[in-house]
Amino acid sequence: MKPHIDAGGVYVIAPTPFHPDGKIDESSIDRMTDFFIKAGADGMTVLGQLGEAPKMTHEESVSIVKRVLARAKFPIVVGVSAPGFAAMRALTQDVMALGAAGVMIAPPNTLRTDDSIVQYYKQASEAIGADVPFVIQDYPLTFSVQMTPTVIKRIVTENPACWFLKHEDWPGLDKISTLKGWERDGSMRKLPILTGNNALFLDFEMERGADGANTGYCFPDMLVDVVRLSKAGKRDEAHDLFDAHLPLIRYEQQPGPGMAVRKYVMMRRGIIASDTLRKPGAALSPAARGEVDYLMARLARTDPRAKV
Amino acid sequence: MKPHIDAGGVYVIAPTPFHPDGKIDESSIDRMTDFFIKAGADGMTVLGQLGEAPKMTHEESVSIVKRVLARAKFPIVVGVSAPGFAAMRALTQDVMALGAAGVMIAPPNTLRTDDSIVQYYKQASEAIGADVPFVIQDYPLTFSVQMTPTVIKRIVTENPACWFLKHEDWPGLDKISTLKGWERDGSMRKLPILTGNNALFLDFEMERGADGANTGYCFPDMLVDVVRLSKAGKRDEAHDLFDAHLPLIRYEQQPGPGMAVRKYVMMRRGIIASDTLRKPGAALSPAARGEVDYLMARLARTDPRAKV
Amino acid sequence: MKPHIDAGGVYVIAPTPFHPDGKIDESSIDRMTDFFIKAGADGMTVLGQLGEAPKMTHEESVSIVKRVLARAKFPIVVGVSAPGFAAMRALTQDVMALGAAGVMIAPPNTLRTDDSIVQYYKQASEAIGADVPFVIQDYPLTFSVQMTPTVIKRIVTENPACWFLKHEDWPGLDKISTLKGWERDGSMRKLPILTGNNALFLDFEMERGADGANTGYCFPDMLVDVVRLSKAGKRDEAHDLFDAHLPLIRYEQQPGPGMAVRKYVMMRRGIIASDTLRKPGAALSPAARGEVDYLMARLARTDPRAKV
Amino acid sequence: MKPHIDAGGVYVIAPTPFHPDGKIDESSIDRMTDFFIKAGADGMTVLGQLGEAPKMTHEESVSIVKRVLARAKFPIVVGVSAPGFAAMRALTQDVMALGAAGVMIAPPNTLRTDDSIVQYYKQASEAIGADVPFVIQDYPLTFSVQMTPTVIKRIVTENPACWFLKHEDWPGLDKISTLKGWERDGSMRKLPILTGNNALFLDFEMERGADGANTGYCFPDMLVDVVRLSKAGKRDEAHDLFDAHLPLIRYEQQPGPGMAVRKYVMMRRGIIASDTLRKPGAALSPAARGEVDYLMARLARTDPRAKV
Repeated sequence: MKPHIDAGGVYVIAPTPFHPDGKIDESSIDRMTDFFIKAGADGMTVLGQLGEAPKMTHEESVSIVKRVLARAKFPIVVGVSAPGFAAMRALTQDVMALGAAGVMIAPPNTLRTDDSIVQYYKQASEAIGADVPFVIQDYPLTFSVQMTPTVIKRIVTENPACWFLKHEDWPGLDKISTLKGWERDGSMRKLPILTGNNALFLDFEMERGADGANTGYCFPDMLVDVVRLSKAGKRDEAHDLFDAHLPLIRYEQQPGPGMAVRKYVMMRRGIIASDTLRKPGAALSPAARGEVDYLMARLARTDPRAKV
Repeated sequence: MKPHIDAGGVYVIAPTPFHPDGKIDESSIDRMTDFFIKAGADGMTVLGQLGEAPKMTHEESVSIVKRVLARAKFPIVVGVSAPGFAAMRALTQDVMALGAAGVMIAPPNTLRTDDSIVQYYKQASEAIGADVPFVIQDYPLTFSVQMTPTVIKRIVTENPACWFLKHEDWPGLDKISTLKGWERDGSMRKLPILTGNNALFLDFEMERGADGANTGYCFPDMLVDVVRLSKAGKRDEAHDLFDAHLPLIRYEQQPGPGMAVRKYVMMRRGIIASDTLRKPGAALSPAARGEVDYLMARLARTDPRAKV
Repeated sequence: MKPHIDAGGVYVIAPTPFHPDGKIDESSIDRMTDFFIKAGADGMTVLGQLGEAPKMTHEESVSIVKRVLARAKFPIVVGVSAPGFAAMRALTQDVMALGAAGVMIAPPNTLRTDDSIVQYYKQASEAIGADVPFVIQDYPLTFSVQMTPTVIKRIVTENPACWFLKHEDWPGLDKISTLKGWERDGSMRKLPILTGNNALFLDFEMERGADGANTGYCFPDMLVDVVRLSKAGKRDEAHDLFDAHLPLIRYEQQPGPGMAVRKYVMMRRGIIASDTLRKPGAALSPAARGEVDYLMARLARTDPRAKV
Repeated sequence: MKPHIDAGGVYVIAPTPFHPDGKIDESSIDRMTDFFIKAGADGMTVLGQLGEAPKMTHEESVSIVKRVLARAKFPIVVGVSAPGFAAMRALTQDVMALGAAGVMIAPPNTLRTDDSIVQYYKQASEAIGADVPFVIQDYPLTFSVQMTPTVIKRIVTENPACWFLKHEDWPGLDKISTLKGWERDGSMRKLPILTGNNALFLDFEMERGADGANTGYCFPDMLVDVVRLSKAGKRDEAHDLFDAHLPLIRYEQQPGPGMAVRKYVMMRRGIIASDTLRKPGAALSPAARGEVDYLMARLARTDPRAKV
């Protein structure tokens, strides 16, 4: 895997499955990885926000990556965001040595000026090794860091190892148009854009030029279909499928409970064994579980995958 | 209008219609007010965030309220949020004298501790007059102020003039359950909850016990129907109607462009004459207009109100 | 008064004196203005943060400016920061018509990207009138907006009416050096820099090239002396005087109580009649008053102005 | 070392000395530790913000603690703040096994409500072990988390292992008075308060009832003297000494460059060999070095310790 390599389709953001006692559930990792492969995913990102990365020790993080790599038939991206470069470098070195394709780096939530964001990615790339492909995570809703298209262009231009953009600005449709316009007119090199935000805008993001999805919605198989339909120009079909899932997408996109919703549905679908979150994460309230059940029952009327 | 009075159903959050040159469009105000009345709304809030309140002079604000009150057949709430109590009091006195039913107050985005939020509402109520009914706007996504249920209970208990809660915390379903539980078991007096967030969760908010909606989605007539169906226990019908609108609700809920989307649709529906925003607001990009047109065309397949 | 005009020396930031019942104290305004003139100030800024501007109605704001202008023998700057351009323009027009020399504009605390800050000042200047001299207030500690030197240069270059910089970034010494370097090498037009932050770094700010002070320390007469000594190259003397005041400067610079400290000392010095703050401001605790008294007593050993 | 044990005097916050190439400088650690002992310190905190903790790997952190413990004749506190509990627990277990006296925990900068802060410390204490003495770091200027006295009281009451408060709220004098008042009237158990903020208010903090200092000013020997003089009731002497250092204290308290100032002075004093910071930290500009030299030269007129 080299920098400048392409990326597209669906890179699933994976949760980290735990046993009810909080220990890592390795057979669920296997089952989940197999499920993503069978679903037609093009890659997989582990240890992101939704992988509860900050709740792992270094050793646990490495063990998860090793487990996934043993079965993976696609590129594995590893979230290595950390408050300092030492921990970031240590994890990067270990997972790249194991065979990861690249790493994902989110900006610390204290960055405020354009220059400080650009400088951060420059220093981070130097710290982890200038040949290690990295993904920019642009997620202001969670990180409070706002990157203009110009800032992203500067990062891409200064860092040959910049691999792709996990785009989850909100709102962000015009941002995709701007970046893809620069790519087309040659003022910026190719920058694959995979979108996040739990796919809340995937329908239109694809139409604006995104290359695919990089998110953790509990039906990654649906994401694969929407991306395929959209790329094939089947606009109405893509929207029909997307709209059927939108009530659940919207429900799952809530910060906080969203992670519990995702694990709960994946448990109900038989992909992982338990919906346990590590602290400070909390389980869904009974009312919330009932609502998710209701949404799945409604979805099952048109999408048989929701029949569980 | 007295404090402690009930509130329920749909209180529409109204935009402020402008002519293309930025002047206030009084005939559009009239047409819009009539439309809301005919749509079955139970009340109307003017000069909120979506009414572009900070862009008006005091005189303009008063003139808008006067215009609306001349036709209104339901309670009018006026947003009076301001960086200081002097401007808040001045506007409150003028609009209450004209016949407004109450005012809405958002917390300044610098409040951080529970006590500082409670104290702010205490001082604000004293500043505007302890007999003026006021609405709490709980909207952390925009104001960065997080109010726990306990904080809301303290505000309600300390201030007899607290009228209802404009609930738009996110996520917020369990918050409604908590507050309504306290109301039921008598540990908090009756606090009507009308929900905002562009109705993104209205379906479940009603089922958690909310009393209605207080938001500005461009089809307030749909909100009226969903609230009615939900109160009548017609769960599936409520969700069917809601889900048909969800792709547009979601699109309109984006911070920033959301206001432009709303005005654009209301213009297309013939409710207002122009979708002009005052600066620093910006018009929709052509791509965004096309997307809204597409969403309306899809919606028109099941909801004839979207045929325009 | 025209844009591009110079500025230097000490522009005192004035508090707004109130009677104990919260009404504006006009004779204290007169006495204070006379005191600043006699102290050798070169200008005066009213209705800044420390002038409790957000707590005034429009009419009160205008009346304060009128009162000060009646006696002023130097340029008067008026703080017109507001959440929207309508109120900003209304106040600007009224005070410029009365004879103010220019206005001061702080950025709203929601701005995050370089472009958004530059655009804000562009739109603000257009809104108030492109010929109205305006002052940039760069105060990240209070406004959470961080302006790099490049951003300031862009604002200065795009807006002929940009008059001077109220510099109170923290830390900010190297920022002054950078901006003054650009001024010297011709890559930026002349931008007078007057420093704030309650003068906490005035000693070195002057040595880095600042043109003076624009702050509200309760001994503006000392600021005048330090600026004069520093400009005359009397480094040690400037520091000796400054250091004698530093314990009180430091105490007064605390956000929150700082305003109360300032008014309390000015009351003790006989400059204003009462140290009343409007809500939500609070009086000093008895312990804090005792501490200020102690600091003044210590200061009086070397600076007779502190003997009161 | 058991919870509830007392703490007082000066617990020095130690920088982490590096060689110019960024490697940990172990002989400087030794020299620095010996210096603090000789200076009369009562304890020492390593791996705080100023110890550049986030820039260390786990192994480096452990090695630093081991090195310090080998010479320490007083309690060692270890900063273990981390984005998740797994890393926090791992470091705590290792350093407590080595003989550390306790750990310091700062709140993540995303906490907003009173309850979320209280819950965080509860969960953190459970995660590291309910018998491990921990220090609350209350530093809103850096962490953007505001703890009211009531919140601190709740943390102290719920967690027997809460050892002392590193108080660096700003402003914070009345907070000390409130907490010490509760301690005196028995409504809160004994909570030692050691103050930070680079000692900017140490003079009055001691008079408000603080038990000592817990900060990293480059003259910890001066802190020891001020605390001793203040406890002995020698108010004027304490202030005289403090005031002589205030110009440098103030200079060193600047966020960002402050760390470089501290290391530069400690290098000049011969306590550490190099003033190197790890990235993203930056060296002082030549102008800043000149300013620090000037401040030290002035200080040397009254305090011979500054003659270097």
